[in-house]
Amino acid sequence: MILTVTMNPSIDTRYEVEHLVVDNVNRVTPQKTAGGKGLNVSRVLVQLGDDVVATGLLGGHAGAYLGELMDADGIPHRFTPIAGESRTCIALLHDGNQTELLESGPTVSTEELEAFLANYAELVQQADCVTISGSLPKGVPAECYAGMVETAVRAGKPVLLDTSGAALDAALAADVKPTLVKPNLTEINALLGTAFTTDEAAALGDAVAADPRFQGVAWVVVTMGAAGSVAFHDGHRYRVTTPPIQAVNATGSGDSTVAGFAHAIAAGMDDVAVLACGNTCGKLNAMDPQTGHLVMDKWGEVYASVEVTEV
Amino acid sequence: MILTVTMNPSIDTRYEVEHLVVDNVNRVTPQKTAGGKGLNVSRVLVQLGDDVVATGLLGGHAGAYLGELMDADGIPHRFTPIAGESRTCIALLHDGNQTELLESGPTVSTEELEAFLANYAELVQQADCVTISGSLPKGVPAECYAGMVETAVRAGKPVLLDTSGAALDAALAADVKPTLVKPNLTEINALLGTAFTTDEAAALGDAVAADPRFQGVAWVVVTMGAAGSVAFHDGHRYRVTTPPIQAVNATGSGDSTVAGFAHAIAAGMDDVAVLACGNTCGKLNAMDPQTGHLVMDKWGEVYASVEVTEV
Repeated sequence: MILTVTMNPSIDTRYEVEHLVVDNVNRVTPQKTAGGKGLNVSRVLVQLGDDVVATGLLGGHAGAYLGELMDADGIPHRFTPIAGESRTCIALLHDGNQTELLESGPTVSTEELEAFLANYAELVQQADCVTISGSLPKGVPAECYAGMVETAVRAGKPVLLDTSGAALDAALAADVKPTLVKPNLTEINALLGTAFTTDEAAALGDAVAADPRFQGVAWVVVTMGAAGSVAFHDGHRYRVTTPPIQAVNATGSGDSTVAGFAHAIAAGMDDVAVLACGNTCGKLNAMDPQTGHLVMDKWGEVYASVEVTEV
Repeated sequence: MILTVTMNPSIDTRYEVEHLVVDNVNRVTPQKTAGGKGLNVSRVLVQLGDDVVATGLLGGHAGAYLGELMDADGIPHRFTPIAGESRTCIALLHDGNQTELLESGPTVSTEELEAFLANYAELVQQADCVTISGSLPKGVPAECYAGMVETAVRAGKPVLLDTSGAALDAALAADVKPTLVKPNLTEINALLGTAFTTDEAAALGDAVAADPRFQGVAWVVVTMGAAGSVAFHDGHRYRVTTPPIQAVNATGSGDSTVAGFAHAIAAGMDDVAVLACGNTCGKLNAMDPQTGHLVMDKWGEVYASVEVTEV
């Protein structure tokens, strides 16, 4: 079983209007899905045929509705209930634009967080692999993910961490490191204080290898959009190039990449297969209008076109 | 007890941002209230000290949340549950504008509507006055309000109808008429096929008196914003002028006016008091930033400045 963590899930609501009328009334028909990066990961894992359990924090009536949306997507879930209402995030598609309204979400109490961490520790025991994605809700300290990573690693389970900011800083500063981190080029440059371009994979590799924060992180994958990715695993360095595709909705492609990595790592695949699987999932998500959903009938074609070279 | 009907309530969500960033992410903190025109009426009646029961249709998890929001506002409620999720309506305050995103809401089944109508008929027996406000949800025929008006009138209860379009047309075409309708000047001109201005109250009165659709409607009140209103009651004609005020949020002023009429009619007040009370509530709502909420400490001042003249 692969355990996915979503600490601040949301009712993702999509409104589509041809033209947004400012300062007046716009009548809309909503499409609502169980959102948050970890739930995108879960949705892709279900498509890949994995046993999944989604966990995190679900609040109030909105949380109960999110549970129903997960049921509809066939995602088994074991969230911890909280008193605050789970949030709603709106994607407003209008005039060729995607304008997003992201609610801040509920504040989590210390008791609620403790209840979640106990639930998480239990679920980790049953997991083959753990993914932790997205931001922390209000009331949860930045060190939370570092502790959750340690719980997984001490239980002997690979743990993939996809977050940013203070939560990532705290996880990289801790003694026990995540198995995989997946910064994009902008994020890794910010972390390293560098300005590497997609053509400087070798120099980037040297910088990552020299930085003590990445020591003990088995997998560092730096994603570079259409330029593919560079990856570092236990002293090996890889350059991954991906085929040009007809992208229709790239939202959730990073989450889909994480799902592909988790799928392959949980199955004990070799480095090349791990990288090919992750990058294939990212591409197949971008080809589908739904967020966190792969165009599965293109799997063979895209997978065969992903090139992984040790450099 | 005053019974208020809201057939398509919504979680009214207010997002305030200084500047809306189009085609990018906007982080927002929501303010959520129990919305829908009938719930604005209920909120004002609670402020006026009336016994109120709010009814209508509540769907799913969103409906349960709406029930909690009503509890928080001290509004007693006896809604009929439906399977579909109650809707959300968003008011986005940005760049000095109010851009609204109004969801269409759930579709109501025949069985659900029948269950509601049975509940409504029971509640009408206990009511001193009934208000019916707003649009009908999908799946409910336009004639629904006409039937609900008949139920109230046959039970000997005054019934105030504040709707528009096909639902109003059907109610005015029926044999049994509502006790009060409250079109604004634009709506009454559309109904009559006329183009009266605020200065032509006498001619408007003649046209209303001559139109068979208004025969049997005890009260016809035509609201004209800052210009006050003209009203027709059992052969009497009134011109109501209201004091200039510092309006901060006129949303819900029509609903507040209905609440004032219901309060006065239920209490058996005379024509002048009914008109003064309704118009005062409309003004006091516009002076308060919250929708469906009166600045009660200005009651005496505003009430004294409303002038009702028989013409």
